[in-house]
Amino acid sequence: MRTIRLDLAYDGTSFRGWAEQRGHSVRTVEGVLRELLPRTLGESVGLAVAGRTDAGVHARGQVASFVTTSRRRPEQIQAFLNGHLAPEVIVVGASVAPEGFHARFWATGREYRYVIDNGAVSDPFRGRFEWHHPRALDVTALRAGARQLVGVHDFASFCRHPGAGKSTVRDLQRVTVRREGDRVILSFRANAFLHQMVRAMVGTLVRVGEGRVAPEEVARILAARDRGDAATLAPARGLTLERVVYGRR
Amino acid sequence: MRTIRLDLAYDGTSFRGWAEQRGHSVRTVEGVLRELLPRTLGESVGLAVAGRTDAGVHARGQVASFVTTSRRRPEQIQAFLNGHLAPEVIVVGASVAPEGFHARFWATGREYRYVIDNGAVSDPFRGRFEWHHPRALDVTALRAGARQLVGVHDFASFCRHPGAGKSTVRDLQRVTVRREGDRVILSFRANAFLHQMVRAMVGTLVRVGEGRVAPEEVARILAARDRGDAATLAPARGLTLERVVYGRR
Repeated sequence: MRTIRLDLAYDGTSFRGWAEQRGHSVRTVEGVLRELLPRTLGESVGLAVAGRTDAGVHARGQVASFVTTSRRRPEQIQAFLNGHLAPEVIVVGASVAPEGFHARFWATGREYRYVIDNGAVSDPFRGRFEWHHPRALDVTALRAGARQLVGVHDFASFCRHPGAGKSTVRDLQRVTVRREGDRVILSFRANAFLHQMVRAMVGTLVRVGEGRVAPEEVARILAARDRGDAATLAPARGLTLERVVYGRR
Repeated sequence: MRTIRLDLAYDGTSFRGWAEQRGHSVRTVEGVLRELLPRTLGESVGLAVAGRTDAGVHARGQVASFVTTSRRRPEQIQAFLNGHLAPEVIVVGASVAPEGFHARFWATGREYRYVIDNGAVSDPFRGRFEWHHPRALDVTALRAGARQLVGVHDFASFCRHPGAGKSTVRDLQRVTVRREGDRVILSFRANAFLHQMVRAMVGTLVRVGEGRVAPEEVARILAARDRGDAATLAPARGLTLERVVYGRR
């Protein structure tokens, strides 16, 4: 038995997210991978994943893993998958992982990036991967708002489906906000994220950037631990899972 | 009567090119524009265009023009079209053009860019706009081959459908080839291009870059004035109309 690690990048536009939805005829990244893998492995496998991206969300550094009895070399698995899925989904790397490796449970951090195209008109070459929002944004205010979110907090206000009895406490380790020409780029690093947490935070921060919500108000929304207090979600298209960190456990 | 100039960018992936195909239910850029324009102008118009891009070919700096009796302001036309087409097709600019302006006949130069992703695996974020071709390419040889093409020549060898009695002589003013990380980027500037001329040239030059055809051989292929001598076409996805030049006529 070997554990294989897959490093993946994908354009999530036409996928209903990562997670396979059995019995539903919707296209998901996990679904297409689990459909293809038996053809090269000779057996079906279960997939673990570091970040269960939502419908329309992209990944540059997603990590998945599976256990198999197949002796197929990782490069062969990679070439087979890329032959069927490129360029929408790309296996950037495939390798034999240390015994016991689990893409989700071994991950100690995740980094997401959200790109807002703040220019007057959107860009056909990047439009699939960013939210076109031309209203003026004050990056200093955005940053001040973001600062209120950093730390170990109960992020219930920024979570859609917490799941009964599940903790909504997360460690948001870093948020950066920068302007690059017409783009405003937000980067979030946490031990893990709740369902739709990044998009909910971006939705709220954009209202701060527009001057409609004071930066200090973000702390109040966070403290309320009530989903109703946060603004609407920022669209999925602007969100990309950039990187998964495997550090000391 | 006013002449309106539209500066357009588009992701050509899901279009059957620029030109409307009447009586055929295929989606073209001209087709969607001509369908939408009457709703803001109150009348239908004919469109002139600088570069009749083929199916799957993109544009960053396409120029179209039309004559109308409508007094709608250009910014209103732009906002209306972008509201319906973004981000796949974007009206980057709309303006009242000098009297008699014609997007095609006034253009004195066109610039196309062809991007080859020469890395081991393709990139989901840029894959719609480049040709993934991982075989090793010698940029110096590519450049030497490209040099044979520059000048005023009969490019019949690099044209699919010349059209009966039409001249296949064009002035290829400049070709540049550069490597940027994993990418090999070719840029072509001419007074005008023949049908599929850039893709045919790239197809041949790539064979030169692979060492399968000597750079000097390109001059022979050009001189043959026979389509059969050129290599297969490079895929449409890597090609973008970058810029149209309106200079002294």
